[in-house]
Amino acid sequence: MTSATGNDTGSAGSSSGFGSPCGACKFLRRKCAADCIFAPYFCSEQGAARFAAIHKVFGASNVSKLLLRIPAHQRFEAMLTLAYEAQARVRDPVYGCVSHIFTLQQQVRTYSYKLSSITTTQLHDFPLSGYYIFMKV
Amino acid sequence: MTSATGNDTGSAGSSSGFGSPCGACKFLRRKCAADCIFAPYFCSEQGAARFAAIHKVFGASNVSKLLLRIPAHQRFEAMLTLAYEAQARVRDPVYGCVSHIFTLQQQVRTYSYKLSSITTTQLHDFPLSGYYIFMKV
Repeated sequence: MTSATGNDTGSAGSSSGFGSPCGACKFLRRKCAADCIFAPYFCSEQGAARFAAIHKVFGASNVSKLLLRIPAHQRFEAMLTLAYEAQARVRDPVYGCVSHIFTLQQQVRTYSYKLSSITTTQLHDFPLSGYYIFMKV
Repeated sequence: MTSATGNDTGSAGSSSGFGSPCGACKFLRRKCAADCIFAPYFCSEQGAARFAAIHKVFGASNVSKLLLRIPAHQRFEAMLTLAYEAQARVRDPVYGCVSHIFTLQQQVRTYSYKLSSITTTQLHDFPLSGYYIFMKV
């Protein structure tokens, strides 16, 4: 997960504990319930800033509904990818993380072209219809 | 834009016209205003189904606000990428379009490894400290 998304949702597994609201509830200025769906992913200290992008792009209600449809053991991964998409969309409102996809597609095309050029050159230099030896002179 | 996102938002430039609501307003069951922000991107016929994923993932209000912050000439591109992200998230609630990024990153790594292997092999076979000739036998 790290290569595309990094670890943007803060201290995984942190909970609101000690009466402090989680970062999401702090941002939303609401009471943080014991079973708050966001608490494991947004710590009280830095979670609010991290939750801001998610809230702005997806909305807290949509993310909450989405998490509830996902098995608990996959929610952390889901939150990482949502945070990644949200931050990308805040940075680039037109393309969001799709600009990353375009860049990678271009890289794949470039590498593919280089590889096929090398293969074509090698086939041209060393046709399969004979054997070659290499001599140092 | 086509390679990653296709053209998922339907007939660009279509408007609600003739009293029919645009696809977004049809989905939201609301009156389609003359200056409806969604009308150019969601035709009355197929737009409602296409808008459903966007509404489910981002919410109509969030998308509307986002569009209003983008210059008019870039809104179609934005809507394409939003539709792409939304459809990917509906298909794969855990990873969304980030799974596409992982696949592409893996492809780039594989190609990069192949290219560096070829380069290393070529350097090993043909060291720069001498000249080689190739003889067919």
